Amino acid sequence: MPMTFTVAVAGATGYAGGELLRLLSGHPEVEIGALTAGASAGSSLLSHHQHLITLADREVVATTAENLSGHDVVFLALPHGASAEIAAQLGQDVLVIDAGADHRLIDAEQWRRFYGSEHAGTWPYGLPELPGQRDVLAHTQRVAVPGCYPTAVTLALLPALTAGLVSGADVVAVAASGTSGAGKAAKVNLIGAEVMGSASAYGVGGVHRHVPEMLQNFARLGAATPTISFTPVLAPMARGILATVTAPVPAGVGLAEVRQAYADAYAGEPFVSLLPQGLWPQTQSVLGSNAVHLQVAVDEAAGRLVAVCALDNLTKGTAGGAIQSMNLALGLPETLGLSAVGVAP
Amino acid sequence: MPMTFTVAVAGATGYAGGELLRLLSGHPEVEIGALTAGASAGSSLLSHHQHLITLADREVVATTAENLSGHDVVFLALPHGASAEIAAQLGQDVLVIDAGADHRLIDAEQWRRFYGSEHAGTWPYGLPELPGQRDVLAHTQRVAVPGCYPTAVTLALLPALTAGLVSGADVVAVAASGTSGAGKAAKVNLIGAEVMGSASAYGVGGVHRHVPEMLQNFARLGAATPTISFTPVLAPMARGILATVTAPVPAGVGLAEVRQAYADAYAGEPFVSLLPQGLWPQTQSVLGSNAVHLQVAVDEAAGRLVAVCALDNLTKGTAGGAIQSMNLALGLPETLGLSAVGVAP
Amino acid sequence: MPMTFTVAVAGATGYAGGELLRLLSGHPEVEIGALTAGASAGSSLLSHHQHLITLADREVVATTAENLSGHDVVFLALPHGASAEIAAQLGQDVLVIDAGADHRLIDAEQWRRFYGSEHAGTWPYGLPELPGQRDVLAHTQRVAVPGCYPTAVTLALLPALTAGLVSGADVVAVAASGTSGAGKAAKVNLIGAEVMGSASAYGVGGVHRHVPEMLQNFARLGAATPTISFTPVLAPMARGILATVTAPVPAGVGLAEVRQAYADAYAGEPFVSLLPQGLWPQTQSVLGSNAVHLQVAVDEAAGRLVAVCALDNLTKGTAGGAIQSMNLALGLPETLGLSAVGVAP
Amino acid sequence: MPMTFTVAVAGATGYAGGELLRLLSGHPEVEIGALTAGASAGSSLLSHHQHLITLADREVVATTAENLSGHDVVFLALPHGASAEIAAQLGQDVLVIDAGADHRLIDAEQWRRFYGSEHAGTWPYGLPELPGQRDVLAHTQRVAVPGCYPTAVTLALLPALTAGLVSGADVVAVAASGTSGAGKAAKVNLIGAEVMGSASAYGVGGVHRHVPEMLQNFARLGAATPTISFTPVLAPMARGILATVTAPVPAGVGLAEVRQAYADAYAGEPFVSLLPQGLWPQTQSVLGSNAVHLQVAVDEAAGRLVAVCALDNLTKGTAGGAIQSMNLALGLPETLGLSAVGVAP
Repeated sequence: MPMTFTVAVAGATGYAGGELLRLLSGHPEVEIGALTAGASAGSSLLSHHQHLITLADREVVATTAENLSGHDVVFLALPHGASAEIAAQLGQDVLVIDAGADHRLIDAEQWRRFYGSEHAGTWPYGLPELPGQRDVLAHTQRVAVPGCYPTAVTLALLPALTAGLVSGADVVAVAASGTSGAGKAAKVNLIGAEVMGSASAYGVGGVHRHVPEMLQNFARLGAATPTISFTPVLAPMARGILATVTAPVPAGVGLAEVRQAYADAYAGEPFVSLLPQGLWPQTQSVLGSNAVHLQVAVDEAAGRLVAVCALDNLTKGTAGGAIQSMNLALGLPETLGLSAVGVAP
Repeated sequence: MPMTFTVAVAGATGYAGGELLRLLSGHPEVEIGALTAGASAGSSLLSHHQHLITLADREVVATTAENLSGHDVVFLALPHGASAEIAAQLGQDVLVIDAGADHRLIDAEQWRRFYGSEHAGTWPYGLPELPGQRDVLAHTQRVAVPGCYPTAVTLALLPALTAGLVSGADVVAVAASGTSGAGKAAKVNLIGAEVMGSASAYGVGGVHRHVPEMLQNFARLGAATPTISFTPVLAPMARGILATVTAPVPAGVGLAEVRQAYADAYAGEPFVSLLPQGLWPQTQSVLGSNAVHLQVAVDEAAGRLVAVCALDNLTKGTAGGAIQSMNLALGLPETLGLSAVGVAP
Repeated sequence: MPMTFTVAVAGATGYAGGELLRLLSGHPEVEIGALTAGASAGSSLLSHHQHLITLADREVVATTAENLSGHDVVFLALPHGASAEIAAQLGQDVLVIDAGADHRLIDAEQWRRFYGSEHAGTWPYGLPELPGQRDVLAHTQRVAVPGCYPTAVTLALLPALTAGLVSGADVVAVAASGTSGAGKAAKVNLIGAEVMGSASAYGVGGVHRHVPEMLQNFARLGAATPTISFTPVLAPMARGILATVTAPVPAGVGLAEVRQAYADAYAGEPFVSLLPQGLWPQTQSVLGSNAVHLQVAVDEAAGRLVAVCALDNLTKGTAGGAIQSMNLALGLPETLGLSAVGVAP
Repeated sequence: MPMTFTVAVAGATGYAGGELLRLLSGHPEVEIGALTAGASAGSSLLSHHQHLITLADREVVATTAENLSGHDVVFLALPHGASAEIAAQLGQDVLVIDAGADHRLIDAEQWRRFYGSEHAGTWPYGLPELPGQRDVLAHTQRVAVPGCYPTAVTLALLPALTAGLVSGADVVAVAASGTSGAGKAAKVNLIGAEVMGSASAYGVGGVHRHVPEMLQNFARLGAATPTISFTPVLAPMARGILATVTAPVPAGVGLAEVRQAYADAYAGEPFVSLLPQGLWPQTQSVLGSNAVHLQVAVDEAAGRLVAVCALDNLTKGTAGGAIQSMNLALGLPETLGLSAVGVAP
């Protein structure tokens, strides 16, 4: 392989595509190649992403295997259901990183239940913070980027699960998300006047497609019979997820023990931080960065551990996580081109 | 009593005071009298509340019993701990409505634990939607206005509790709130650049002062051993609470049964609405109004009922609720001067 | 005519329609009749306007003369070009109030230049604050509601023009507007993630359709050869216009003289206020109300008068202004159903 | 000098200080040394800037010459009036970059008039885009960082001034700014509930302190008798300036000629871009970056050129501009550690 890797982005005009390009344009070891889209093929990239001024001369071409071939890395930022066919046409020597949902779930039945289509198969899961996962990602040509909510909820509970402090049963999570999580879609319910100054719930009652992915992660972390009540809330901000995750904790488990478990679990992590006691995560602090901020409490009266997690849905929750996995798969330093410092205020 | 009631507002320069005055200025049966404050005494009301243009000639005077006496109604919108002394100096023939926390809790021990001061006693609780409470409020000269979060969480679960669908044990609630809920205080962590575009949790782990009030309400609604894990989240909006409240529900309880319970419980309520199926509450829809919007789901896999509730923390959650109780106590139509239609978009 | 007037709203599902219905639902002398729309006919009103909970049982019907006939008042909140045909089919005894642009301009050539279609004729202009206009509106069955920007810019300069302090030449205005001004349209550039946290200009260089209406108003107020450089700016808020309007002022004209002219001009106005010196207009203070807040300065070094004006584009700028004119045309008190107190914070 | 430069930041806890540290933490040739503040000395940096997680172990010390000495570069992000005394105690071999106002103005009389204190002297002006200024900055140990508004207004008009298309007389500028521009101050009028969803003007009528700096720049660019009516507007966003700048343009000057002048003037600039025709600047596109986006129009009817400029007040408008000048003064590549790609959406 060359020292500089050529990279193509399929679905370059959406938010995941735009964030990939923002990060890749500052990555020292990549050269940005083909940028593809569906209906927008033939338009200038700048007309979709006015912030990508350094790519002002680029034009978007059609999402075809032909246009995507010949690159070392191909990112797929496509609607679910569209990745499998394209991926099948790209060689096994190409690193294909799917920022969509198609290859995340192991259980084909769950896929069908939540997505209503045939399962496309399972790829290595791009969450390096999972135990043993860095080794897997270092030797793969295929990566399934985790969903934004599962990233937040999983990282919020990982240390408690691996330390055996919680069982993974009866987890309750409510996550406020910026509206970019709903995609760059021309829908009336997403226009500014509808969402500014307003919070609203959606996908309530266990129907959100990220639920089986969360349970799959809990199981992987040792939960015997995981269950979760998950409610996503649209908050009036462009980016960011603030997940409040609670789980029953046995009497006698105290805050010191819990904090120790979290500190130990994330001791060497470049992007995940347990905040000092007294500070609570805020999405602003991680905006535009790959950072994950965590804080924990033990509510003895309620018998629950409460973990709060902040991350940027477009960065660590999508494009940044994807590039972190790319770095691992290419043998580059894991943090290359990624920042742990958010853009605040 | 006269046909028109004279009303004084103590704490007129804060957000609760401003909202009381906004609503009272449109109320057909009241005449606004003394407006009092602490350090701001002597300043013009308009310099604190530029929206109250119809009261542009008013000056704020000191919060003293002398200034407040001689009115039919006195609203107290004071920091907790300040109401009891003032109230003691106002005659029993004056209707005193405390928008603060001082007289909400029944259990003096809980008061001391959460507020760290001596308990000031318990007044009739200004939540007309509680069974039997309208009769109480119709015959009182003292009202304790509920907290904004307890109003949302209690109304979210009331029908399920009274119908026996949930027990009130292991409730988990996460509520996103506009920043006006934190008061009109000059604090760096509240300034616009810190809160815009950001969500953050606070008061995590059962330490928020509204927790004992929620449990008190659950007990009143029949819960034998209520517990709640409550997490408030600051959302980047000025007003509004969106509460997601979940509770274990026995297997076999279905959505139809739950919806029926909610529809029945709120059938005659002028301000509380179960939305048609498919619509989910959004805070924008209740902004500036006394309306409460609810929607419910049953998550069978998680074994939990999920109720989502939207209200305006300053209106139904404080000043609107206060005026609703005032109307009842004065024998006026309950909805006078209050709207169920929010200011959207 | 009956004591209560029946009112129909054509274009009920858009923002102007929604705001008309919000205000009409609190108006004591109207009964809301037919609600019509184009493609949305057959759907429930609540699915479009979740805040209009008191109209939860209403269904939207097709915008036809048949559906609109039989009412005392018909509001037209339609895209420009659609009003004339409908209006022609409504009897001359029906009060027709066009919230759109079709009947505002006097000069057919200007209409064609800015709108590219045939001129539909000119109706009495619904800005009661113009000298002599209340009499006109009291005796008309047709009203053209002013545009939101022209309302702000005209009221900002009216006293200076009528007092002869400025000539109306070389006016420069920049107006920040909430995104509801762009309508309830499913466009990518309007979705929340695009507009939150961002300000942007549009319609720059004299091409905005409201420019000829502003010049027409200046001329009416005495300007011999009015010119204006007008730039609208989209601000990250749902509602509100803050217009900064500057015009050359002769040397020697001081602030006292200017303030006196503004105070005199708006002395009896129920909705327009010159703020006390030291306070500057903010859109929050007029949100949801029919109020207009003004403040002025004289910049001697620059040789310009600067007037700043805040109003709510949907209320005084559209629906509130429309109802103010309706009240006048029906012989009702001008302020009925309208508030001068904004919803703040 | 060493290959890596040690850098101290005085006023590290404010917004300018935080932004300097965010950028410096990603700059490959600097090592962050002392971080100082006034009243906050002794506290952890993270308690002020939760986003600076990579500096979580840092403590803030007192702003004294002793603490600041021994570094290659010292940034001063202090309230105006505080820089001169500190600077005088730092050796002439130290590169001192003042992000405050103290050393921007040439005319001591103007300084006294607008700031009410004694003039501290004039340092080389840190706006590399001014003709000839890069040479000056390459050979200085003192830099006065331009104000955020003057940066926007000057860059908006520079090509028109240097090409002689406008004279610099009767300029009218209105600039919407994010609230971080008002600083990290605990003031009631800045708290979130006051500023969210609201636009307001301040410093109206030629009294803003940035006015003489703008006129100084216009004069430097050839204006014989520059005047400007400047109105700043607080917009509900944390960051960003959108400046609309208009100036009289002689009849016959067309858009093509104007665009050519702008394209020529900024042809080699790494951070300033004239957008392709049809695209208009939006602050979101430059958020967190050093980019400046421009677009121009000619309004023939009004006889004015209109230039619209977007930049991030904290980055190019303060900290990014400061680091750009630092790079020049240290002989480093001008763009090191700075990005031209904004964080959008």
